[in-house]
Amino acid sequence: MEGRSINFGAGPSALPEDVLQEAAKGLLNFEGTGIGIAEISHRSKEFGACLSKLESHIRTLLDVPQTHSILFTQGGGSAQFSAIVLNLLARHRLLHPELKDEERVMDYVITGSWSQKAAAEARRLGGGKVNVVVDSREFSTKDKKSFDNIPPHGDNNNAYKFSPDPALIFYCENETVDGVQFAHDQASPASFPFHRLPQSALLPLVGDHSSSFMSRSIPHLADHAVIYAGAQKNIGPAGLTIIIVRQDCIVDVDAAAKLGASPVPITMSYKTLADHGSLYNTPSTLAIYVAGLVLQRMKNMGGLEYYENVNRAKQAKLYNAIEESEGILRRKVREDAGSWMNVVFDVAGDGADTRFIAGADKLGMKAMKGHRSAGGIRVSLYNAISEKETDQLIEYIKEFVRQEKGRVASEAA
Amino acid sequence: MEGRSINFGAGPSALPEDVLQEAAKGLLNFEGTGIGIAEISHRSKEFGACLSKLESHIRTLLDVPQTHSILFTQGGGSAQFSAIVLNLLARHRLLHPELKDEERVMDYVITGSWSQKAAAEARRLGGGKVNVVVDSREFSTKDKKSFDNIPPHGDNNNAYKFSPDPALIFYCENETVDGVQFAHDQASPASFPFHRLPQSALLPLVGDHSSSFMSRSIPHLADHAVIYAGAQKNIGPAGLTIIIVRQDCIVDVDAAAKLGASPVPITMSYKTLADHGSLYNTPSTLAIYVAGLVLQRMKNMGGLEYYENVNRAKQAKLYNAIEESEGILRRKVREDAGSWMNVVFDVAGDGADTRFIAGADKLGMKAMKGHRSAGGIRVSLYNAISEKETDQLIEYIKEFVRQEKGRVASEAA
Repeated sequence: MEGRSINFGAGPSALPEDVLQEAAKGLLNFEGTGIGIAEISHRSKEFGACLSKLESHIRTLLDVPQTHSILFTQGGGSAQFSAIVLNLLARHRLLHPELKDEERVMDYVITGSWSQKAAAEARRLGGGKVNVVVDSREFSTKDKKSFDNIPPHGDNNNAYKFSPDPALIFYCENETVDGVQFAHDQASPASFPFHRLPQSALLPLVGDHSSSFMSRSIPHLADHAVIYAGAQKNIGPAGLTIIIVRQDCIVDVDAAAKLGASPVPITMSYKTLADHGSLYNTPSTLAIYVAGLVLQRMKNMGGLEYYENVNRAKQAKLYNAIEESEGILRRKVREDAGSWMNVVFDVAGDGADTRFIAGADKLGMKAMKGHRSAGGIRVSLYNAISEKETDQLIEYIKEFVRQEKGRVASEAA
Repeated sequence: MEGRSINFGAGPSALPEDVLQEAAKGLLNFEGTGIGIAEISHRSKEFGACLSKLESHIRTLLDVPQTHSILFTQGGGSAQFSAIVLNLLARHRLLHPELKDEERVMDYVITGSWSQKAAAEARRLGGGKVNVVVDSREFSTKDKKSFDNIPPHGDNNNAYKFSPDPALIFYCENETVDGVQFAHDQASPASFPFHRLPQSALLPLVGDHSSSFMSRSIPHLADHAVIYAGAQKNIGPAGLTIIIVRQDCIVDVDAAAKLGASPVPITMSYKTLADHGSLYNTPSTLAIYVAGLVLQRMKNMGGLEYYENVNRAKQAKLYNAIEESEGILRRKVREDAGSWMNVVFDVAGDGADTRFIAGADKLGMKAMKGHRSAGGIRVSLYNAISEKETDQLIEYIKEFVRQEKGRVASEAA
């Protein structure tokens, strides 16, 4: 559409234009009801169908087994940082009422800013002890301070120290700020070390998939206790959170509170959400509707496999362009840990970041400034960014690199 | 617009059509950025301006003093049922660290389903004792079981038993399900008994204004500790919660937890929201944008006074039409307690409710079925329902009453 930019922002982020066109109509008249989607009752049969469709799309696209429920709520990943602790400590309390708080362990795999925040929230809430399974900064080749890698878990070196019977095991699949992600190829040493987990049929494994959800398949999905994601990266507007939860983790938090667990706000209890089909209270109806349209479109385009292939190609092209810039652009994270969704790099030279962004802006390519805590450039390649748009960026990068080389040459002269 | 119904639903509910038209454009291109409002970063300057404007509209329209902060979050009234308990018990703990849990009292004024739910959540969370200040069912003239009135607080009869130093005092200004509301006229015996409250400069008075927010001025606003509202009645899509909080109620919940208070999920702490200008985590950007458009329109139309006058006229006409139906329609709540926003009534005769709804439906008037727990008819007259649309409904009611009378006469013959 005339006047639309290419939005490489990290989230909220680009949505498919045809979905937005459709949503614009739905705002005024949803499914011929004469009522807009933001105005219709969440108890209406029309909205009920919309919610069911979203659930069924997620189940089909990700192949979620019947052992797992799909729940919808509000509050994003930050609210889930608390919800996972409260619900899974309640579960652990019911399983092991005899343990003292300091004997309950929550395992956190720390690979970036978001997992660090998640662990901080577990410490704040208490009720158990946080064990840092690994902190990837210790494996940084740069300065021992950077989240620039995925720690090794090979036969001869294993950085991950899991506890024998933790209340939860947390990892963040893709670190949006730092641009590191577990490798999708399970044979890679930078994949998540599922084989290193304690042996148990009902592992309390929690994956924060906020910024990679629906961009590619989820390895070992069925082995997870909880997978959650905010919608605002690949699938919809902010204000919707998706939770995939194994049913043994939907527990009576009030019974656990009677045994000494912390009280759980009613809207944060997975049981409340599950018992009411995610309609205990009014959900984000508009965000649910848009997410449904996005996933319908995904199915029409060829499902997760199609997106996985496109996303693989997009990131490969971009990392390649960085590689070929001969030092003008410098990737910030180790090769095997590079995120498919958030590609972070620096531009060599004073003020070069600003030049890079200004030049892109002129061509209608926007929102590539790195996170305020990280600086540099961050290019987010979520599902709504097409391969063609990625190619446009790469053309720009090539031109930019030529100019920068020219500048360096003339300054040297 | 062609094909648009009149939506008398209780929430999510009608929004002004011109706002929806504008929002439809914003979905594709927000403020000329080339990026849609659901796609733009919550950290962008454009969205920042949008959020500031919403806050400033609320402050101006409601005349919120500088002693109070305006915060935005997610989760609606149900999440606030928990948040008020957690934040205000933390405040009480910091003020009175020496008290035992059973010595901390939370006062609840119960006038309907929502205040009942709020009190139930306070009991669930614990950390203090719930004192029922009054339960309006005891004053029902019908059956001692109905939320059909506002209890009396005259010179000679005072139903309200407030505690001397409670952690919070809760009331729900308008009960959406039951159709009762405190009288706006402060001289009415059905108004909220502000003069009966314990004497204190910093009362922990909490008003749930979810379904009446922005429909008329808020009496004694400056005396409140917290006023909150979900957006999805008068001002916007579901997924946005507005909290007006007096600054002494923004407390360090972690310090309180060290003294024994319950831990507070980080996104539920008012201090987290306040310290980060409501941008600790990604907010419901789309809902914030639409609410901003609705309030801009309110200002353009003449502000709160204009809406208050129109809303007063709308409900008066509707209650009057019920009165004049000579028993065909029967109001369910006492005269002085009738809600301006949610007018509830029964239709006399077998299957008459269904006939009423089907007849209205044919004329494009929708969503008037009473709440599943209450039955009968509920007509919601939120701000987006114009006086003209209310007149259309009243014309229909008159015609319906004529027909029902004819039916009764012919059945008697």
